[in-house]
Amino acid sequence: TTEFDPTEHPHRRYNPLINEWILVSPHRAKRPWQGQVEAIDETPKPAYDESCYLCAGNTRINGEVNEKYTSTFVFKNDFAALKEDTPIHQEDDPLFKMATEQGESRVICFSPDHSKTLPQLSQQEIEAVVSTWMEQCHDLGARYNWVQVFENKGAVMGCSNPHPHGQIWAQQQLPTLVEKKHNAQRAYMESYNRNLLTDYAAKEITKQERVVVENDDWVVVVPYWAAWPFETLLLPKFSVSRMTELSTNQQASLADILKQITIRYDNLFQCSFPYSMGWHGAPYDGESHPEWTLHASFLPPLLRSATVRKFMVGYEMMAEAQRDLTAEQAAARLREVSPIHYKEQ
Amino acid sequence: TTEFDPTEHPHRRYNPLINEWILVSPHRAKRPWQGQVEAIDETPKPAYDESCYLCAGNTRINGEVNEKYTSTFVFKNDFAALKEDTPIHQEDDPLFKMATEQGESRVICFSPDHSKTLPQLSQQEIEAVVSTWMEQCHDLGARYNWVQVFENKGAVMGCSNPHPHGQIWAQQQLPTLVEKKHNAQRAYMESYNRNLLTDYAAKEITKQERVVVENDDWVVVVPYWAAWPFETLLLPKFSVSRMTELSTNQQASLADILKQITIRYDNLFQCSFPYSMGWHGAPYDGESHPEWTLHASFLPPLLRSATVRKFMVGYEMMAEAQRDLTAEQAAARLREVSPIHYKEQ
Ligand SMILES: O=P(O)(O)O[C@H]1O[C@H](CO)[C@@H](O)[C@H](O)[C@H]1O
Ligand SMILES: O=P(O)(O)O[C@H]1O[C@H](CO)[C@@H](O)[C@H](O)[C@H]1O
Repeated sequence: TTEFDPTEHPHRRYNPLINEWILVSPHRAKRPWQGQVEAIDETPKPAYDESCYLCAGNTRINGEVNEKYTSTFVFKNDFAALKEDTPIHQEDDPLFKMATEQGESRVICFSPDHSKTLPQLSQQEIEAVVSTWMEQCHDLGARYNWVQVFENKGAVMGCSNPHPHGQIWAQQQLPTLVEKKHNAQRAYMESYNRNLLTDYAAKEITKQERVVVENDDWVVVVPYWAAWPFETLLLPKFSVSRMTELSTNQQASLADILKQITIRYDNLFQCSFPYSMGWHGAPYDGESHPEWTLHASFLPPLLRSATVRKFMVGYEMMAEAQRDLTAEQAAARLREVSPIHYKEQ
Repeated sequence: TTEFDPTEHPHRRYNPLINEWILVSPHRAKRPWQGQVEAIDETPKPAYDESCYLCAGNTRINGEVNEKYTSTFVFKNDFAALKEDTPIHQEDDPLFKMATEQGESRVICFSPDHSKTLPQLSQQEIEAVVSTWMEQCHDLGARYNWVQVFENKGAVMGCSNPHPHGQIWAQQQLPTLVEKKHNAQRAYMESYNRNLLTDYAAKEITKQERVVVENDDWVVVVPYWAAWPFETLLLPKFSVSRMTELSTNQQASLADILKQITIRYDNLFQCSFPYSMGWHGAPYDGESHPEWTLHASFLPPLLRSATVRKFMVGYEMMAEAQRDLTAEQAAARLREVSPIHYKEQ
């Protein structure tokens, strides 16, 4: 009988954060790719682009003029998916159940420099992003149960503007994915009287095989249950349940680790690496949540090169997420690349 | 106070089949699109392409030669994600839980004609596809608990070959999405002593507002909880839990409804409409499953035109699926187009 080899044998791994499984088919990476390739645009961009609706001093499509900002800049999304004044309404038929949602959507420019992305900003500039995230969570968390901080980067991710920016959507109800994480962390604490992600981070730091980068306060791993090829999970090494609770030192070390992981991403295929990233922490419901650990996820689509992505389609849409290399292989690849950005080497 | 207007006000809808919510932001369809556009290839294709690895008589990458088939043709996937002989192995640490999976992956060519897609095949040719699906489910269902029949169509969906084809993946464990549907249908039957999708189909047929096409045996609706812009759900009007249980008449009427819905899809934006579609029914576990209803889903990415898709990224990946028009608006759009394929008008 053959021994199980994770790099050869199809297997399923369990994601304890959302109580779902994924399929790992590591031998699939060997198949040739004849499908769609992505366009990449690596032409150098100017520090200021007069046609960009995010650059400082420019006029947006609705006629509003951006501040002449010099650090970060937050404004209300001109095409907000969530609105403050939605009338309250709900229907309870089990097959036609709905509820209106109230909320706000904001855009956050990371820097006035149109030509840069997160890994190219200085430590100090990234600290400004972190403190803006904190302020926004503080402000919106006072009125909403949930504040979703995220960044959507790259044309392949449907992002229409290369200017470095993210979004913040706040709302009253917990979104689907967040509710799963809420329930899973609560159930773990009920079973073991311990915090799920604290336990997980400690074990990964001991094992080291899925660790990509770490500093005194933070660790980035390709989680055991990663779905996207180079998906990572950014975890604190200290107890913290919400973004609003970071000390000045922890903000600085967070800026450092964000720079480290995004540099490695850019270096992997020598391109501005596309991804969606976002933050999850305890809801702003006025309760303390010892079961929750604040964390960020990076979900990048690229698989083989700067132009060949993973398609989560077909089996993935109808059955379950499937990956073509192991989490350990992905972590090793990310550890191998230089810690210095390829454009600065 | 304003009255709730589903076409104006952000709201969440509940998907009772998987016990998850989605966000509807109908006013978002008004925002201008400046992002990525998809390439479309509408150049006429030859009925036979010597470089196609699915055409009859051609040699595949691994040296095998395709039969000179004249109807449908099934073969083992040359880069199968699932394998029969995987050694059995399992790990139970709650944070590092895994299990190997055994299975098979097959490719099914719908027709030898390289230039056609499902809506362009004749009634008789689509009946052959349906009966091949049934045979495959019968064969693989005898050895595996789950048989996933699906089709992945279009370059934007990562499909590398325009030759009309689908896939069949069989395995022992229930995939994540299937398990959710399994649990939801069981819970509904436990609560109401009725079948969830039988109840749902009956209500949709009475309401009509989300019905796209129907015949004596089948109805296609944009489900109340649709996530993708023009997502549809194909439901039987009779009791049936598995693909293997269709009568000859029901197979014929299924071929008819498949042709109807795929013609409407192609007509919507006058292009070969990309999608992932797949079938879900009771597991092949030897039990009877009165709670299960056999059904198919079509998950198409296009939103505004043949080249502008919906990106399920950012908020969608980090929080929950979000749509930019209501299910009712999508159904009305699909009802408005001609029932005759645009290439045959
Ligand atoms: O099997 P194909 O068509 O080569 O590949 C496509 O479908 C598979 C099954 O849905 C996916 O896992 C792949 O990501 C996708 O590119
Ligand atoms: O808001 P944007 O960047 O215009 O739009 C992008 O991000 C949104 C939030 O993740 C998504 O709903 C859109 O599908 C995507 O195109």
